[in-house]
Amino acid sequence: MADGKPSPKHIILTSHPGKRVKKAGTVNWAAPSSQERGPIIGTVTEPADRNVIGSHAGSYGVYRALAVAAGDLAPAWKPDLTNTEPAEPIGPFPQWSEPGRIVSLDPWGHMVAQVFSADLKAGRDIRPTIAVTKAHINMPELKDAIRAGRLTPDGTILNANGDIRVTKAAIDPVWYLPGLAERFGITEQALRRALFEQTGGMYPELVTRSDLKIFLPPVGGVSIYIMGDPAALADSKRQVACRVHDECNGSDVFGSDICTCRPYLAHGIEVCVATAQVGGAGVIVYNRKEGRALGEVTKFLVYNARKRQPGGDSARAYFERTECVAGVQDMRFQELMPDALHWLGIRHIDKLVSMSNMKHEQIVSQGITVGERMSIPDELIPPDAHVEMEAKKAAGYFTEAPVAADLAAVKGRDLKE
Amino acid sequence: MADGKPSPKHIILTSHPGKRVKKAGTVNWAAPSSQERGPIIGTVTEPADRNVIGSHAGSYGVYRALAVAAGDLAPAWKPDLTNTEPAEPIGPFPQWSEPGRIVSLDPWGHMVAQVFSADLKAGRDIRPTIAVTKAHINMPELKDAIRAGRLTPDGTILNANGDIRVTKAAIDPVWYLPGLAERFGITEQALRRALFEQTGGMYPELVTRSDLKIFLPPVGGVSIYIMGDPAALADSKRQVACRVHDECNGSDVFGSDICTCRPYLAHGIEVCVATAQVGGAGVIVYNRKEGRALGEVTKFLVYNARKRQPGGDSARAYFERTECVAGVQDMRFQELMPDALHWLGIRHIDKLVSMSNMKHEQIVSQGITVGERMSIPDELIPPDAHVEMEAKKAAGYFTEAPVAADLAAVKGRDLKE
Repeated sequence: MADGKPSPKHIILTSHPGKRVKKAGTVNWAAPSSQERGPIIGTVTEPADRNVIGSHAGSYGVYRALAVAAGDLAPAWKPDLTNTEPAEPIGPFPQWSEPGRIVSLDPWGHMVAQVFSADLKAGRDIRPTIAVTKAHINMPELKDAIRAGRLTPDGTILNANGDIRVTKAAIDPVWYLPGLAERFGITEQALRRALFEQTGGMYPELVTRSDLKIFLPPVGGVSIYIMGDPAALADSKRQVACRVHDECNGSDVFGSDICTCRPYLAHGIEVCVATAQVGGAGVIVYNRKEGRALGEVTKFLVYNARKRQPGGDSARAYFERTECVAGVQDMRFQELMPDALHWLGIRHIDKLVSMSNMKHEQIVSQGITVGERMSIPDELIPPDAHVEMEAKKAAGYFTEAPVAADLAAVKGRDLKE
Repeated sequence: MADGKPSPKHIILTSHPGKRVKKAGTVNWAAPSSQERGPIIGTVTEPADRNVIGSHAGSYGVYRALAVAAGDLAPAWKPDLTNTEPAEPIGPFPQWSEPGRIVSLDPWGHMVAQVFSADLKAGRDIRPTIAVTKAHINMPELKDAIRAGRLTPDGTILNANGDIRVTKAAIDPVWYLPGLAERFGITEQALRRALFEQTGGMYPELVTRSDLKIFLPPVGGVSIYIMGDPAALADSKRQVACRVHDECNGSDVFGSDICTCRPYLAHGIEVCVATAQVGGAGVIVYNRKEGRALGEVTKFLVYNARKRQPGGDSARAYFERTECVAGVQDMRFQELMPDALHWLGIRHIDKLVSMSNMKHEQIVSQGITVGERMSIPDELIPPDAHVEMEAKKAAGYFTEAPVAADLAAVKGRDLKE
């Protein structure tokens, strides 16, 4: 076509873009300023502007494609970002440009309408990968905490009706492939090849376009809930509480009693509120990594295998059964988890509300110091969840309590009950 | 290589598989029996067996690829499915082979270890795309319902401590592309092209391999919670209650007061329990479609734009702001939602706990009759959620109550509060 754009009748295989597509603008990952770093552009309609593999919104990019297919959304549509900027500033922090600190999100992702306003005005399709807003949340368990006298409403952070004022953020994944490879101790080439081959051939550019260093993968993102002043998280003189929580829909939403996920989350929020009330801040980092990132189908298959094994569900076989069905015990890659903490400017966590050694190790090895580690109070553990709890303790999870001597004796319900 | 397998040193572009890869085994979608239908095989290590585009576990396939990249998981590993079979039988039902009834999941997905056992023994890598297990769930709101006398414990379905016995299922997406295209009223070619182009080039096979009709997309799946006897769902003589619920992490987990999602979900479960207690069954279909499938980043951007618009957040501008930021109001594609109901054998819903006209229309137009439609009781609506509620009613959502005369007058909190 005369304007140099590809003909709409002609499908362009992105693995072999042809002459008409100029080489993508460079992204200087971890550069000291937004301008030196440059915008991350995932547009699917301006091939010359693209400097990533993949598309925006994680796995929801597939639904956007459906919307275009169904004729609901114009292919060339661009968002109007008026009034969408963060409701509370986050950063910039030195961590954003410290080499190797952040590799799985774009620290400037919430600020694109501000820092890349000239590019946006020039018509480039730059989209936020992070959004920061404010909310009131209200969980029945927090009302219980007030009733039991563990929390006292203050009218600012916590209302008498149980409402908690929070700043919250949603983060879409933005993977800097050389940084991910370094964190896993493998070559970038090996990472790209496995991502391509093991997904059945998703994005050939992973192996054909080594000049594109950034991948917007179709996976779930991160939700952040901050209690108290977000600036306190980066202030060494103020207390910081933190729970890093991985999604467990069955417990977090429905209150399934086979695990401690929701009770532990509620306990974490309680500690965060109390920390905010003494002038600090608390943060919940909620990762969309269902069933240790094995997915819920695998998780339920493992439940069946655990409950049906000879002798019934026991702490001894907890991890073993997972490995039979999934090949590994865990695919969450906690190596990537501290990125959200670095984005928030955190250097020290006074109270880490987690028993996970994997999480603690990654947080500490990536340069964040940890004061106290807090395990879940015993009275908050549902009866059937003792199998999980004892298995985790025996596997080296942090605990203040003694580990059960006989793991086979810690039993869960069978499927008939 | 001598055995006909591709050399492990040689990357095979799946868009151009070459001579060594045999044509995939045919999948006769909606065939009357599992044997005539044939297994759906997403293996990434046996190219000759593959008969799909994509890989297993929805978006979690990307984490499996990371596990292989990191050296945690052997590339050729296959699951051991011992003892993983459904804890409660679901189907087969006539709907599974009625033309056009089910297009976005594999109705045989939970039964592969049974119906394809010969193929599994022969070493083929066939994986369940559905898992069915049992659980006890316990939500604080249901304890409130017992305390208020709205529910009475019976010791079987509902315990005095609030525990509810459920059968639950997790479903990974399996898309039959010709069926999806038909449901959206577009050509298969247009669907394939948009899925490819609008994701920035995900899976070139979408446009190069028209012989592969099935796509395992990297999107979230569906969780099903059944109260009472699952067989009652397909029995015209027994009552059926149903809530179709789309994920809203902010409300479902954290109790954000800007919407009614969690209160409505809890109300739905209450109706399901009551229906099970009179000999019927209730089902919650929980779809991983955050923020109307626009994703949480877009959702939070819209919150900011709503709260900051001149005059503040109002019911009038609720859908308008979404369209400015996202281009459309909704990408959930309720056209696909009834598939899970067909899988469960449902022909009639006595109590549909939803105000959504989109959901009602799709359920009815796809052949399931609906008795009563139940809206959320007013006392369960959080104060800030009245903006959403009035906007929805004005847009034609079902309600038993009158619609507010002046939509601009129904206001939410601003960002400072």
